[in-house]
Amino acid sequence: MSKIRIVIAGATGYTGSELVRLLLDHPDVEIADVTSSSRAGVRFDEVYPQFSGFFDKKMIATEDIDPAAYDAVFLGLPHGISMDFVKKHGYAGTPVIDLSGDFRLSSATLYNQWYPEKHVLPDSISDAVYGLPEWYAGEIRNADLIANPGCYPTSSILPLIPLMNSGKVDPHTVVIDTKSGVTGAGANPKPNTHFPTANDNFSVYGLKTHRHTPEIEDVVNRVTGTQPTIQFTPHLLPVSRGILTMVYGRANGVSDEQEVRSWFEDAYADKPFVKVADAPPNLHHIRGTNYCALYPTFDERTGNVIVISVIDNLVKGAAGQAIQNLNLRFGIQEETGLKHSSLAP
Amino acid sequence: MSKIRIVIAGATGYTGSELVRLLLDHPDVEIADVTSSSRAGVRFDEVYPQFSGFFDKKMIATEDIDPAAYDAVFLGLPHGISMDFVKKHGYAGTPVIDLSGDFRLSSATLYNQWYPEKHVLPDSISDAVYGLPEWYAGEIRNADLIANPGCYPTSSILPLIPLMNSGKVDPHTVVIDTKSGVTGAGANPKPNTHFPTANDNFSVYGLKTHRHTPEIEDVVNRVTGTQPTIQFTPHLLPVSRGILTMVYGRANGVSDEQEVRSWFEDAYADKPFVKVADAPPNLHHIRGTNYCALYPTFDERTGNVIVISVIDNLVKGAAGQAIQNLNLRFGIQEETGLKHSSLAP
Amino acid sequence: MSKIRIVIAGATGYTGSELVRLLLDHPDVEIADVTSSSRAGVRFDEVYPQFSGFFDKKMIATEDIDPAAYDAVFLGLPHGISMDFVKKHGYAGTPVIDLSGDFRLSSATLYNQWYPEKHVLPDSISDAVYGLPEWYAGEIRNADLIANPGCYPTSSILPLIPLMNSGKVDPHTVVIDTKSGVTGAGANPKPNTHFPTANDNFSVYGLKTHRHTPEIEDVVNRVTGTQPTIQFTPHLLPVSRGILTMVYGRANGVSDEQEVRSWFEDAYADKPFVKVADAPPNLHHIRGTNYCALYPTFDERTGNVIVISVIDNLVKGAAGQAIQNLNLRFGIQEETGLKHSSLAP
Amino acid sequence: MSKIRIVIAGATGYTGSELVRLLLDHPDVEIADVTSSSRAGVRFDEVYPQFSGFFDKKMIATEDIDPAAYDAVFLGLPHGISMDFVKKHGYAGTPVIDLSGDFRLSSATLYNQWYPEKHVLPDSISDAVYGLPEWYAGEIRNADLIANPGCYPTSSILPLIPLMNSGKVDPHTVVIDTKSGVTGAGANPKPNTHFPTANDNFSVYGLKTHRHTPEIEDVVNRVTGTQPTIQFTPHLLPVSRGILTMVYGRANGVSDEQEVRSWFEDAYADKPFVKVADAPPNLHHIRGTNYCALYPTFDERTGNVIVISVIDNLVKGAAGQAIQNLNLRFGIQEETGLKHSSLAP
Repeated sequence: MSKIRIVIAGATGYTGSELVRLLLDHPDVEIADVTSSSRAGVRFDEVYPQFSGFFDKKMIATEDIDPAAYDAVFLGLPHGISMDFVKKHGYAGTPVIDLSGDFRLSSATLYNQWYPEKHVLPDSISDAVYGLPEWYAGEIRNADLIANPGCYPTSSILPLIPLMNSGKVDPHTVVIDTKSGVTGAGANPKPNTHFPTANDNFSVYGLKTHRHTPEIEDVVNRVTGTQPTIQFTPHLLPVSRGILTMVYGRANGVSDEQEVRSWFEDAYADKPFVKVADAPPNLHHIRGTNYCALYPTFDERTGNVIVISVIDNLVKGAAGQAIQNLNLRFGIQEETGLKHSSLAP
Repeated sequence: MSKIRIVIAGATGYTGSELVRLLLDHPDVEIADVTSSSRAGVRFDEVYPQFSGFFDKKMIATEDIDPAAYDAVFLGLPHGISMDFVKKHGYAGTPVIDLSGDFRLSSATLYNQWYPEKHVLPDSISDAVYGLPEWYAGEIRNADLIANPGCYPTSSILPLIPLMNSGKVDPHTVVIDTKSGVTGAGANPKPNTHFPTANDNFSVYGLKTHRHTPEIEDVVNRVTGTQPTIQFTPHLLPVSRGILTMVYGRANGVSDEQEVRSWFEDAYADKPFVKVADAPPNLHHIRGTNYCALYPTFDERTGNVIVISVIDNLVKGAAGQAIQNLNLRFGIQEETGLKHSSLAP
Repeated sequence: MSKIRIVIAGATGYTGSELVRLLLDHPDVEIADVTSSSRAGVRFDEVYPQFSGFFDKKMIATEDIDPAAYDAVFLGLPHGISMDFVKKHGYAGTPVIDLSGDFRLSSATLYNQWYPEKHVLPDSISDAVYGLPEWYAGEIRNADLIANPGCYPTSSILPLIPLMNSGKVDPHTVVIDTKSGVTGAGANPKPNTHFPTANDNFSVYGLKTHRHTPEIEDVVNRVTGTQPTIQFTPHLLPVSRGILTMVYGRANGVSDEQEVRSWFEDAYADKPFVKVADAPPNLHHIRGTNYCALYPTFDERTGNVIVISVIDNLVKGAAGQAIQNLNLRFGIQEETGLKHSSLAP
Repeated sequence: MSKIRIVIAGATGYTGSELVRLLLDHPDVEIADVTSSSRAGVRFDEVYPQFSGFFDKKMIATEDIDPAAYDAVFLGLPHGISMDFVKKHGYAGTPVIDLSGDFRLSSATLYNQWYPEKHVLPDSISDAVYGLPEWYAGEIRNADLIANPGCYPTSSILPLIPLMNSGKVDPHTVVIDTKSGVTGAGANPKPNTHFPTANDNFSVYGLKTHRHTPEIEDVVNRVTGTQPTIQFTPHLLPVSRGILTMVYGRANGVSDEQEVRSWFEDAYADKPFVKVADAPPNLHHIRGTNYCALYPTFDERTGNVIVISVIDNLVKGAAGQAIQNLNLRFGIQEETGLKHSSLAP
């Protein structure tokens, strides 16, 4: 088989560097081009010197590329910019995997409510498939426009679906208290990501208003038929990568912890990238990997179901999941290029 | 006025070093002695070299001290050992401020249920005053045995009391998701506090079983008459000091955010060490200080009341609060020696 | 005595926030005003929320202040801007303590060689006194323009002077390998201070070209009459504050380690902020304090003299030393407001 | 070809976990067994949960293994214990790659001078080949006992050899100021690796006495015929992995920086794991990889040659280099299983 030739549009962010890191080890993919709007002409390993000797292509201008020249397109562009790209180029001939938030929600109305931009391609939203392979693998195999999930939603939806499907957890009592490493805020320096501010510190942000909230509620509803109401609180951890999410919900009629575990063991029995862990997982267990580790439990004293969920925000929460989607879309074995253990400590 | 001569029994832990740091700046206190069971004879600034030039007393054996020789005793001993000390020496002549968990709960029955040791002084439990000055100042002024609160309970009880007193928050829906710096685990190296394990990591521990849970439920009940059922989940942050606690509860009949804020503004109007913050506080705002910053809010979309609470676990969560209690007990102005701003960044 | 009323011009940087932190505890100083060019009208505790309840003055425009309205001026402005301020306002009536690099070197020629700007006040350079109290206390007491030393120079000059004065260390073999926390790079976010870049990382910068090199060589020459040639290499540590400097030099005729220690014990016997340590000091020993800890030793095997030097870059390396200079200039006891132990851990 | 079946004796340390991580991706090696003295019977992924789903073998007792049952033995045992193992089992039939310090020095006399144990196999020392492939590849291909280099020596010897071979750097003026992540201190918690002690801190240790000093001097002498006298100073960085080493030496007759670079470009032209970098490298450039990046330069002002050297202490400084040695010894392409880019940020 000849290799799948892909382009990464908007490659200078962490999503782009992580796609390059992972695809360099992918046996069936060739990175034909990487693009940038502001740094065209610069060698990629000048921006990310860890690729010196591995990948020294010069970036071309995002404006100049023609998707038809590639087998697939990864979009690492910011939301708003991403849908402009899709509007200009379409996705009929060459499948597009979009890592922004532009095609994740189920309607332009919802998008316009939570995002600052007005959606420019409302008719394409229904063409887009939500790229969460554990629940959308069938559609992904035939999709031309894949909306790669957000990092918080990935870490939240995977535990929520079995809870909602059980019918035993009140969907309007869900509390999601989640904590992310600083790469989740992107590669551009900001006041809250300045080392002296973030180091030896911990803070809440996006209280009540984070735009991953509707993505979680919307997708869980599409998959389970139950729309939860979620209290979603993200925090900024002084770590580079990783998300640990706690999901709480009030249960009714649950007999014991093993019952809750069985919902998860059944749901994810044949999903290679979701592990139901025997002990509470932490960020070191999944760093640099495409795995999501879930630890579901039940507190008899309080009547709550609790799930711990950990992922690497740049891998299962972004680039790794995008490659998992590519594998499915091109009929390759789902784990190809992604079967590595964690770098720890 | 002659100075209050105090002894710190069990001074080699972080509680001890923090008491020394703060008391060196206290105008009315003299640290007459520091003790240790295992390191008697060693100079304190050999154990904590940051005190070189400030405090070079040799530690004496904990076994050798006579409380009658001092005006007050701080107990920095582990739980179990602390009640042995109190049993041996009593607290009639010299007031004791105990920083362990031995006298915090309201009954020996509850203690025996959550702690590994059996309580050796059940009759003294009713003599002990819970040393949370914002709610027990009157009793503290006359107490001979003061049970200094735990760090997580301090950060949790201060936000919970106004919620319970409002009568508008369902006491059985409370979720407390809390995150502590590693000094909370003490000064002795353990596998989970080994730098390569804790660094660039984040983990849950004590899920469903942490012994600060009954302390919170018990004290809130004693103060408000309402016993909440709390889902309490502590996490280990890769920071040295500080606790950030999120409190969630389902509300009924709340009109808006300002109503929730008013519960807190009223409760803490004249409490010098509790601040009702205008924006979400973080750990840098209170590092090294005796302040608790609270940020209460209401989410109309979900119907939940949410409170952010931050303290320094070694100060307001331990040594600073102990000094605040000492000040009250000896009729000194409550803020004496504690009115410093945070060291940040 | 009425308080010394000071103004901090350019207060939004870390130098400014550290001056505020320390001066709030200074019994003889009143912060009359803080200024900013870009954020005039904003409350200081909005920029630095740790001062909420402590210091809520609105900043005034740097352009609008008149030094004559204060007893002393601290300049927290960037180099280049600082000398413009001094040129405009002079320093005849109100003493100026400048924390930039504009008046530290002994000639405009040297300044123009290492700094990008051309010096605008060459005639004032000889009026400026180098504000290193351990070696310039006499001049500082009478100075109108005090050039507060750089952080790296403070940590390097204090160990170098006794070495050069000994006559037994070859001045042309000195290697200074020094490592600083990220606050040394200032409060403005930059690519190399972005948390994901600096965290769990360590890097060299300014190799062969850092502009603190001439400051060190020049001042050591002025004090000792010997101009060393220094190989100066700074590194960026993933810590918030603190500098650890290693000084190496080839010795001749040194009998033993005690001889080397005696050079330091003699030089700093009566200097309250320099400690000759008994064991290798680290950053936790001096965090948040105005102390410099020195550990001199001699390696008989190699023939090298070695000195470890640690300071807090924001205190002894900037704001604390500036206050030490203010104390001397106003005839106050040198340690006033600065006698605190370290916040550790 | 059938796979090379190896055993890792003493696998619970970081060397062991890193060997497992890397060998799981090695196409020609099978990890037949892992051993432990204290934790025999425990599943490896219980000790290191990141291997859950990847490697769940139970550890066998180190005492019980027979090297003849494997194609090669990796020794991850502490020094002292390692030579006991070799004494008991020999290395005639099955080649041994020892990651301890027991066979690195060229004589038992030197060993006995710097190590606490007396060497028990002095006659085998001359059989041992120093496992630095860039300079000993020929001997390694035929060795039965390979002494895998220390982490600091790897990062120091690679830059030193071209300097000594040039004949233009005074061998008795070499200063090596080096900084290591905390995994270099091993997997067992100690006071100086306790998170609150190491976090936001930086310290010197082993001043003048670190036992990697003779290893560096000895090996450089064996390779170049010039024995340098090295001032070696290690520091503890608050990072998990990585070593950055600065090498300084006084030069004579060097024309310019390009001359110095050419020494390195010539020496390492065909060495796949040594890169001569175009810009100062940092720890993120080599994290998790087997690469050493060197940045040599010359300071005309001072007359010093300077080299920056970075490695991952657990990979090129331990497990990766051991695999590189295995590859050579078994006639496999040297880069097999080791050609990955860095995990950054």
